[in-house]
Amino acid sequence: MLYLVGLGLGSFSDLTMKGYDVLKKCDYVYLDSYTSIFSEEELKALDINGKCILPADREFVEQSNEIIDRAKNHDVAFLVVGDPLGATTHSDIILRAVEKNISYQIIHNASVITAVGCCGLQLYNFGATVSIPLWDEFGHPESFYDRVIMNMKSGFHTLCLLDIKVKERSLENILRDRKVYEPSRFMSCYEAVHQIVDVSNRKADDQRSKGNTAVMKSCIVICLSD
Amino acid sequence: MLYLVGLGLGSFSDLTMKGYDVLKKCDYVYLDSYTSIFSEEELKALDINGKCILPADREFVEQSNEIIDRAKNHDVAFLVVGDPLGATTHSDIILRAVEKNISYQIIHNASVITAVGCCGLQLYNFGATVSIPLWDEFGHPESFYDRVIMNMKSGFHTLCLLDIKVKERSLENILRDRKVYEPSRFMSCYEAVHQIVDVSNRKADDQRSKGNTAVMKSCIVICLSD
Repeated sequence: MLYLVGLGLGSFSDLTMKGYDVLKKCDYVYLDSYTSIFSEEELKALDINGKCILPADREFVEQSNEIIDRAKNHDVAFLVVGDPLGATTHSDIILRAVEKNISYQIIHNASVITAVGCCGLQLYNFGATVSIPLWDEFGHPESFYDRVIMNMKSGFHTLCLLDIKVKERSLENILRDRKVYEPSRFMSCYEAVHQIVDVSNRKADDQRSKGNTAVMKSCIVICLSD
Repeated sequence: MLYLVGLGLGSFSDLTMKGYDVLKKCDYVYLDSYTSIFSEEELKALDINGKCILPADREFVEQSNEIIDRAKNHDVAFLVVGDPLGATTHSDIILRAVEKNISYQIIHNASVITAVGCCGLQLYNFGATVSIPLWDEFGHPESFYDRVIMNMKSGFHTLCLLDIKVKERSLENILRDRKVYEPSRFMSCYEAVHQIVDVSNRKADDQRSKGNTAVMKSCIVICLSD
C-alpha cells in the first residue's frame, strides 16, 4: 500500500492524527525534498518508532521505481509538505501506482492554497494559483505574468508560489552527463517581485514601441514570507 | 485566548496533533454547526478530557458575544470543518477578537479547496471558487453562474461549494418575529446542477429574444459527492 501523507504547514505537530498513525505502521517512509522543504529540526522531533525518514529528490522519485516497487509488498509512506496534491507532480506517482495495481491512499492536510486566508484576503476572491519559476540559463518563462494579469482584470487576488531548485544540474553538466549538482536555491519574494516587474516593464515597452501609449503604469505587489 | 481550529475533511482523525492538543487544554469548545456539518458519531469519538462540545449556530456566533467574552479569561476553541478560513464568515469572529484585544490563533487544516485535487484535476487549473446558494423565497441569486462561465472562458475548472441551511427562519416567521426554524437543508448535486442549467437556459432565452442565435448550446457539469 502506498500512502501519500500531507505534512501541513511546516511543523511536526501539523501532521494529522491519521497521518501520524500511518507513519508509525509503515515499513518505509520517504520525504519529498524537491517540491518544498521541511525543517531538519522538525524531522528529528518526529518519532515514528525509530524509523529513518529517507530523503527523496526529483530524480529519485521520477526516474527510479523504488517507492512503487516497495509498495507492492510493504506499507510505504511518501511525505509531502502541505497537501500531497498541492504540487501537480505527485499525480505521476499515483498514476504509476495505479498502473501496477498498487493501492494508494491520500492523507490530506493544510496547504498554503487555503492557509493564505490568514493574510485577511477572502479565499473566494482568489483566482488561479500561479507558480513563478526561477529564471536561469534554461530560460526566462513569462507565462505566470499573464495569469496574474488575468486574475487582476477579473478582480481576483493571485497566490504566487515561489520556485525552489534542489539538486539540479547546470546545462553544461547535463550536456557532459556529469552528476554534479548546483547549490540549492529558494526563490525570495524580492526575486519574484523583480521578475513580475521585469515582465511588466518589457510588455509596456513593447506596447509603447507599437505606438500604444495607454499602457498600465503601475502594479501592486504584496509579499508574504516567513 | 481564542483558537480557531480546523477539523479537516470530516473524520476525527483528520484533526492535526496541534489541534488536538489545543482542544485538550481549552476550557470551552464550540463547534461551528452552520457553515458545514460534522458527523455526530465522529464527535462522540473525540475524547477531549471529557469536555462537552457546544454547538454554535449562526445566530449564536454572529449575534452573541459569548465566545469572545469567554476568551478574555479562558482558553476557548471554535471548531470549524475544513480550514477555519475556508468560509469567509469566520473573519468576523477574528475581527471582533482583535477589537477587544483578545489574542487568537488559527490551527489550519485540510479543506476541500485543495482536497478537490483527488478527482484528478490539477489545482493550478482551478479558477475562483464559487458558492451556489439554495434558491428559496428570499430570492434566486445568479451571480455564481457568471463566475463559473468566467472560469470556463479562461480554461479553468470551478469548484462549486453547495449551500446548507441550518436553523434558518421562513420569511413569515421573521416578519412575525417568531423563533420557529425551518428543517435543515443540504443542497444536493442535483439541485446545484438544476440551478446552473436553469440560469444557463434563461440566459440563452434572453439572448435569443434579442436576436442573437449564436448562444452557448451545451455545458459540462461534473459532480462529486460522498
